[in-house]
Amino acid sequence: MTTGLEPRRTSCSELETFIIQAYLSVGFPEEDADLAADLMMEADRIGADGHGVFRLPQYIKRIKLGGLNINPDIRIEKERTAMAVLNGDNGMGHLVMHRAAHIAMDKASITGVAWVGVHHSNHAGPAALYARMPIERNMIGLYCAIGNANHLPPWGGTEMLLSTNPIAVGVPANEEPSIVLDMATTVAAYGKVKQKILSGEKMPEGWMIDRQGNPITDPSRADDGFLLPIGGPKGYGLGLIIGILAGTLNGAAFGRDVIDFNADYKTTTNTGQFILAIDIEAFMDVDDFKRDVDLIWKTMKSSPTLPGFNEVRLPGERSNRIAEERTRNGIPIHPALRDRLDRLADELGISPLD
Amino acid sequence: MTTGLEPRRTSCSELETFIIQAYLSVGFPEEDADLAADLMMEADRIGADGHGVFRLPQYIKRIKLGGLNINPDIRIEKERTAMAVLNGDNGMGHLVMHRAAHIAMDKASITGVAWVGVHHSNHAGPAALYARMPIERNMIGLYCAIGNANHLPPWGGTEMLLSTNPIAVGVPANEEPSIVLDMATTVAAYGKVKQKILSGEKMPEGWMIDRQGNPITDPSRADDGFLLPIGGPKGYGLGLIIGILAGTLNGAAFGRDVIDFNADYKTTTNTGQFILAIDIEAFMDVDDFKRDVDLIWKTMKSSPTLPGFNEVRLPGERSNRIAEERTRNGIPIHPALRDRLDRLADELGISPLD
Repeated sequence: MTTGLEPRRTSCSELETFIIQAYLSVGFPEEDADLAADLMMEADRIGADGHGVFRLPQYIKRIKLGGLNINPDIRIEKERTAMAVLNGDNGMGHLVMHRAAHIAMDKASITGVAWVGVHHSNHAGPAALYARMPIERNMIGLYCAIGNANHLPPWGGTEMLLSTNPIAVGVPANEEPSIVLDMATTVAAYGKVKQKILSGEKMPEGWMIDRQGNPITDPSRADDGFLLPIGGPKGYGLGLIIGILAGTLNGAAFGRDVIDFNADYKTTTNTGQFILAIDIEAFMDVDDFKRDVDLIWKTMKSSPTLPGFNEVRLPGERSNRIAEERTRNGIPIHPALRDRLDRLADELGISPLD
Repeated sequence: MTTGLEPRRTSCSELETFIIQAYLSVGFPEEDADLAADLMMEADRIGADGHGVFRLPQYIKRIKLGGLNINPDIRIEKERTAMAVLNGDNGMGHLVMHRAAHIAMDKASITGVAWVGVHHSNHAGPAALYARMPIERNMIGLYCAIGNANHLPPWGGTEMLLSTNPIAVGVPANEEPSIVLDMATTVAAYGKVKQKILSGEKMPEGWMIDRQGNPITDPSRADDGFLLPIGGPKGYGLGLIIGILAGTLNGAAFGRDVIDFNADYKTTTNTGQFILAIDIEAFMDVDDFKRDVDLIWKTMKSSPTLPGFNEVRLPGERSNRIAEERTRNGIPIHPALRDRLDRLADELGISPLD
């Protein structure tokens, strides 16, 4: 598989084992290590490269510095038949949101629709992970989160009070792949800026502006400005509302309370997230619905294309293709990341990736 | 109030009475005429000028041509404790959505969160109307709709298969005004293009492109192209998901099924919409929550501003200011609209606006 041009591949199972060993070495219970590793590998498998094993060194550093609870008592604090609020007890976000998603699905299977919010959670990887979970139970999942660092001001302002607050929605289809939207409410996610810093390429106009409102295209100047929301005031409004629903409503951090988890490894982030599960069967025959989603897929695909486009894509289509390919061929680990993971393995006394 | 530069004003109550008379004259039951007029006047009061009495001639024309049912049997077809699907029986959208919102609130007051979808509804005015309804019951409202004409293709395509599918969210505050987001998933709503056609002004780049992908800035060329979604593929994805949730999931029209209600006054539109009501008390103390929203308001407002901006605004702030001013001074009716309403009054045999 390896060439000079392509990063070496690691099989999904090998990557998962590596992550499990890392978590066990810092004291995670076995069940939690397995689950966290499964979700982090899945992030890489679906192509969310900035949200999978890439984050492992950062998570481990936070655990070692006492900023994350490895034995959380994740518990329901508020509950009605169609909702709950979970206290994540500063546990790993993946574990908190996995629990939240399953409570939401169990409730929705009875009430039709259910919403579970969390506080004192942490970074949980790509939003798509949780929006996808309800799909296999013939449900629609909708997940929102507060990002773990503020990267933009309210529209027209200059104080960074908002994050890229993402929204993800997963919808099952029949013969076609599921439709899975996963989007930041900014034109570019901050990870894309980081990639440009690494590659040295210019950013397109529209990603960032400086404090005078001028475009920033040189990624090395990223600290001089901030990300732009999609649609200007609209993306700002949407990000603000997600902040209220995922943060304020759950008693989680929002605005000036948000901890920059890239800079501060000790302070509890009090991250807020929520998931909504919709049981399709409550609305209509599940097979009919899935066939309708197939038809939507085919209809969008059948549109003639603009010059410069080869095809129309559905949300999640690229991710599905990557997942299929990586399941077969393994997950590419770029050399710089491999070096970091080798150093981590050394530090933790576990076997490095092959 | 009247000057040569400013359109004549009509008081809120006079406008409402006029709309009631119009509906009674075409056979609406009194209760429905009252409710529809109240909501349409409210649309004008909050500044949604393209969605209030402006639409009355079009609605009346549809009723006269048999495209809208004036005696609908609006009924629950599917139901669980936290959800329902309503058949709007091709009734007026305002009546269908008013019913849906109240069912959602009643259910949410027990289950914490509730979702009501509708099919065989019709155009229901501005999205904010319904997202605002739960506020007075200390709930958060979230409303989405399928627009009543397709104005854009899927991203990268050229066949217009999507509408401006809006999302609106209403959040109560304590001393500050409620936060009310109401946004199309396109950079510009189509009504703004129509306003530019009337004014003869150029459109900014980014609103529309033609079938070759080039910007359209001349509004008279609007038919040569289509609206652009916010954030490119992101707004497309969001609009598509809203289409599935508001349309497909309720058995309502989406994609090629959408009827252009500006061109076809006879065919049943089978419009789909949904509302989600969230009972804040299920999550936390209501007063604490509202004080937190006040703090968010003050925090955003306190941000220093970019050059060219006088202030940071919260979603719904402009609309709140307009509503206060119009409550005092009445609703401005532009001369061209007044002429249309005078002709309508003549046609219906009712008293014109003063």
